[in-house]
Amino acid sequence: MKSYREFSKAELENELNELNKKYKEYQDIGLALNMSRGKPNVNQLVFSMPMMDILKEDDDYIAADGVDVRNYGDLIGIPEARKLFADFLGIKPEETIVLGNASLNIMYDCMARAMLKGVLGSDKPWSKYDKVKWICPVPGYDRHFTICEFLGIEMIPVKLSDYGPDMDAVEELVKNESVKGIWCVPKYTNPYGGCYSDEAVKRLASMKCAAKDFRIFWDNAYAHHYIYKDVPVLNILDECKKAGNPNRCYLFGSTSKITFPGAGVAFFGASEENIEFTKKQLNAQTISCDKINMLRHVRFLKDMDGIKAIMDKHAEALRPKFDAVLNALDTELSGRDAGTWVKPEGGYFVTFIGNKNTAKRIYELCKGAGVTLTEPGCTHPYHNDPDDAFLRLAPSFPSPEELSKAMEIFTLSAKIATVENLLKA
Amino acid sequence: MKSYREFSKAELENELNELNKKYKEYQDIGLALNMSRGKPNVNQLVFSMPMMDILKEDDDYIAADGVDVRNYGDLIGIPEARKLFADFLGIKPEETIVLGNASLNIMYDCMARAMLKGVLGSDKPWSKYDKVKWICPVPGYDRHFTICEFLGIEMIPVKLSDYGPDMDAVEELVKNESVKGIWCVPKYTNPYGGCYSDEAVKRLASMKCAAKDFRIFWDNAYAHHYIYKDVPVLNILDECKKAGNPNRCYLFGSTSKITFPGAGVAFFGASEENIEFTKKQLNAQTISCDKINMLRHVRFLKDMDGIKAIMDKHAEALRPKFDAVLNALDTELSGRDAGTWVKPEGGYFVTFIGNKNTAKRIYELCKGAGVTLTEPGCTHPYHNDPDDAFLRLAPSFPSPEELSKAMEIFTLSAKIATVENLLKA
Repeated sequence: MKSYREFSKAELENELNELNKKYKEYQDIGLALNMSRGKPNVNQLVFSMPMMDILKEDDDYIAADGVDVRNYGDLIGIPEARKLFADFLGIKPEETIVLGNASLNIMYDCMARAMLKGVLGSDKPWSKYDKVKWICPVPGYDRHFTICEFLGIEMIPVKLSDYGPDMDAVEELVKNESVKGIWCVPKYTNPYGGCYSDEAVKRLASMKCAAKDFRIFWDNAYAHHYIYKDVPVLNILDECKKAGNPNRCYLFGSTSKITFPGAGVAFFGASEENIEFTKKQLNAQTISCDKINMLRHVRFLKDMDGIKAIMDKHAEALRPKFDAVLNALDTELSGRDAGTWVKPEGGYFVTFIGNKNTAKRIYELCKGAGVTLTEPGCTHPYHNDPDDAFLRLAPSFPSPEELSKAMEIFTLSAKIATVENLLKA
Repeated sequence: MKSYREFSKAELENELNELNKKYKEYQDIGLALNMSRGKPNVNQLVFSMPMMDILKEDDDYIAADGVDVRNYGDLIGIPEARKLFADFLGIKPEETIVLGNASLNIMYDCMARAMLKGVLGSDKPWSKYDKVKWICPVPGYDRHFTICEFLGIEMIPVKLSDYGPDMDAVEELVKNESVKGIWCVPKYTNPYGGCYSDEAVKRLASMKCAAKDFRIFWDNAYAHHYIYKDVPVLNILDECKKAGNPNRCYLFGSTSKITFPGAGVAFFGASEENIEFTKKQLNAQTISCDKINMLRHVRFLKDMDGIKAIMDKHAEALRPKFDAVLNALDTELSGRDAGTWVKPEGGYFVTFIGNKNTAKRIYELCKGAGVTLTEPGCTHPYHNDPDDAFLRLAPSFPSPEELSKAMEIFTLSAKIATVENLLKA
């Protein structure tokens, strides 16, 4: 297709006229479509329904260590859950703590405790520093940024590409002692969709950090969540060990997108030294987490083969939706210079990178025609996307048909915003 | 029985000889009995087994607000859970947030957030003060004290009696601006067993606090957990409102001792203003809690009548155990001046107050004969019971037969420790 940049002014005006006419037609239909949230559809939730009555008799409630999961005990999780989710993270059970229903909450807790008490090797609680800074690859996950903002941790954006964060920039930043860590979603990054390269992982593990208590928060939310292709990503804990920095990384994961979002099991991985340290801190917070739900999950998922089997079903459910989004973008926008996008191999999002100063306009246009997107800016710290270019598309919840309709409106909006801008220039 | 204080030296020596002989016999049996933990026996856990498959079809998973509990949403809990646990706390649903699996964790979170960010009305985060102090009625719950110690909050012990904390002392302490709050277990206090009088509740609600952001942490762990008699305790939120201090109190509760310890549902109550404030803070911590477990609980417990019905069963299961402990104390120690104890009307503990400098010795003697008690000192901040007198007995987990045996050893140990001390004097 011809790029809008090659359009004459008259052609642009004519095009805008046509686009606006179509837009009006969509407005008149009065749609209500939502592509804003990375949550599974009910057709994915049903995969885990057999789990709900898998524990039947009294005997079913006894964990491998003899603990009755219906009672207090096992602060860091039942042994079989630690084993399964260690396998999930590619680490040892001794390096794994299984906790509550949400990995996000574990991340918040880790960061809050770092502020209150420091981490292993800290000279003092992080809150006692004048400034604590954190590296935030962008586009990134809004919930990560919210935690930092809430705790008063200054966020420094760093460009994320298909291969991970701009490591030159990261290596420069960590020469500053007040830079205490980095957010990473290493696989099918939220929302970019790329996967960290071996080089990126190795450089993160081995880089020289001025802060000896620097932490990589490795949110492996989509570790086994392929849609088109399972992309191997190096194990950060292995690499940190090899580089002589075993305590540098915290790993996070959950079954939110395997079984039930917010009603699954979440877990934490780290060096044994970090685990020992964390376990002592956790003892001030709680007696034990919901072990019934842990055991229910282990009995249902069984092992990594079991997890992979259910992930195949999720991939199958999600693929037509991602197809719908990507096809619409290809068909409607290819060659138009109205924005670029990233085809993810897995995960829950498609990132659309509009031309400068179009994201908010596209969002508003979509809204005006009944399509809700995630708010522009959410991909950046402090909701500040300096180029006003990034939009996160979340195809998982609507049906493929709804998505096709929503994408007609989205691509139309992207065209309108682009043409409007060119006419202003 | 004759008081040991009236024994001559020769009589004491003779008695000690006899007691030691008996003690040796118990040692030779090689028992292993545990009275250390306030956890229910499996014969109580089975009451809630019908809950485990109460949600069957897809339709069963839809909350009153139409939210699918198997997916994200409802940060502060599903409406029907907020209603039920508001009733539990004697407050309004709008004053109630239903969260995760443990009220202790909610308390930790509230205190950690106060340190990091302050509470509603704070001038600054509490961690920015040179000192934050907290009033701790003693004997009290070790887990409360652990939270304060972890967060570096200085604990000030205040004497607890059958009617609540020494309110004269409390009113004096709160004249100090650095005193930011107080722990309260108002009903069947852990471990004392008493219940706060109307006067104590009213004085707590209305006292003049120098810190305008003073908070009462009202851990109503045993709100409906009678064993012998349901003792009415005034509602702290009502009283705080009446006194013009609606934001002064935080209420906590859970179903840990109704359904499953650590796998139940926990909740938080406060003024609507506090709830609004807390909801915003929670948004940085998590997306939503385990709503499947919330709905499962509501469908099973139904309403306060349902809760009362299961609490009747718990009372029936616990009564013979408390009888065994109290009878042993009465039979073996009455009139001996070897310690006093409190008969609780409900809750999970019996407090034994030995003579000065006997608690550690009794603990060691029990241990030597195979009876594990909660560590002495745990009833006081920093594990510092200055009189070395308090011991917490937890009768819930062992069988009545085991308890009788354990109490034989306990009362024997109390006698030995008392006689030893008198001989030293």
